[in-house]
Amino acid sequence: MMTYSNIYLTSKYSELALKEATLAAKRGEVPVGAVIVHGPTGRIIALGSNKVIEDKDPSAHAEVVAIRAACKALGSERLIDCDLYVTLEPCPMCAQLISFARIRRLYFAAHDEKGGGVENGPRVLHAKSCHHRPEIYGGIGASAAEKLLKDFFQSKR
Amino acid sequence: MMTYSNIYLTSKYSELALKEATLAAKRGEVPVGAVIVHGPTGRIIALGSNKVIEDKDPSAHAEVVAIRAACKALGSERLIDCDLYVTLEPCPMCAQLISFARIRRLYFAAHDEKGGGVENGPRVLHAKSCHHRPEIYGGIGASAAEKLLKDFFQSKR
Repeated sequence: MMTYSNIYLTSKYSELALKEATLAAKRGEVPVGAVIVHGPTGRIIALGSNKVIEDKDPSAHAEVVAIRAACKALGSERLIDCDLYVTLEPCPMCAQLISFARIRRLYFAAHDEKGGGVENGPRVLHAKSCHHRPEIYGGIGASAAEKLLKDFFQSKR
Repeated sequence: MMTYSNIYLTSKYSELALKEATLAAKRGEVPVGAVIVHGPTGRIIALGSNKVIEDKDPSAHAEVVAIRAACKALGSERLIDCDLYVTLEPCPMCAQLISFARIRRLYFAAHDEKGGGVENGPRVLHAKSCHHRPEIYGGIGASAAEKLLKDFFQSKR
């Protein structure tokens, strides 16, 4: 449930994810950033940004980078009570990983009609076969994230 | 297209994937193994097996491990002309990564009605939003892979 204090914190973490996305853009990566927070305490567990080109790794989306770092930090393949903030709707790969990692709440900014896999495309988290579905909040801080992505792709033309 | 020599080689690589899966079972991991082969030359680029528990990484499915290793070996985030052999139908996460990595052909052994994401569940590679779909051959060497998985889960009860 979103309360007033929740909204304040959500904004803080979403801004941090946006900052990570900005750093990715500076490295020439598609600007997507992610933050993982331990929900009950508000402690930031890991940050991540897109590193597909830098790492020559097609799996190195911001969410995967952040989830792997968080699992390493917590010494577990499950991120119990953790929330993920990301600047773009996760793709099907990331959506499934979010489920595997048992993320509690997913907050994403911009919707991704072409490549998204949560509210768009195969809607992985809504499949009957999906064992764990986080609470999902889309559109949180969308305009700034959309602008960053738009500016990035325009600069590449 | 499957020719006689294709079938012979397919069997060879599928057996190698099964060997990887057997190694995973010995480490207490769900026994899934994968092999990446450069199709035109038949050169083996990378092997992979499930390491979710060992690496405390929910993304460390056999396919992800193999694709990451192959990208590292080839110095590219795209595995042009490469084929993936895996002992179990890929989950939605792995299916999307297979697409991102531009895998040419996907050969999988056992179908996975509960967790699969290719022929089952959200059928990620068949979504309209999927930009690259490999040729897909399911059921290649299925019985041995199924037996390995069945024995593994029975031993865990």
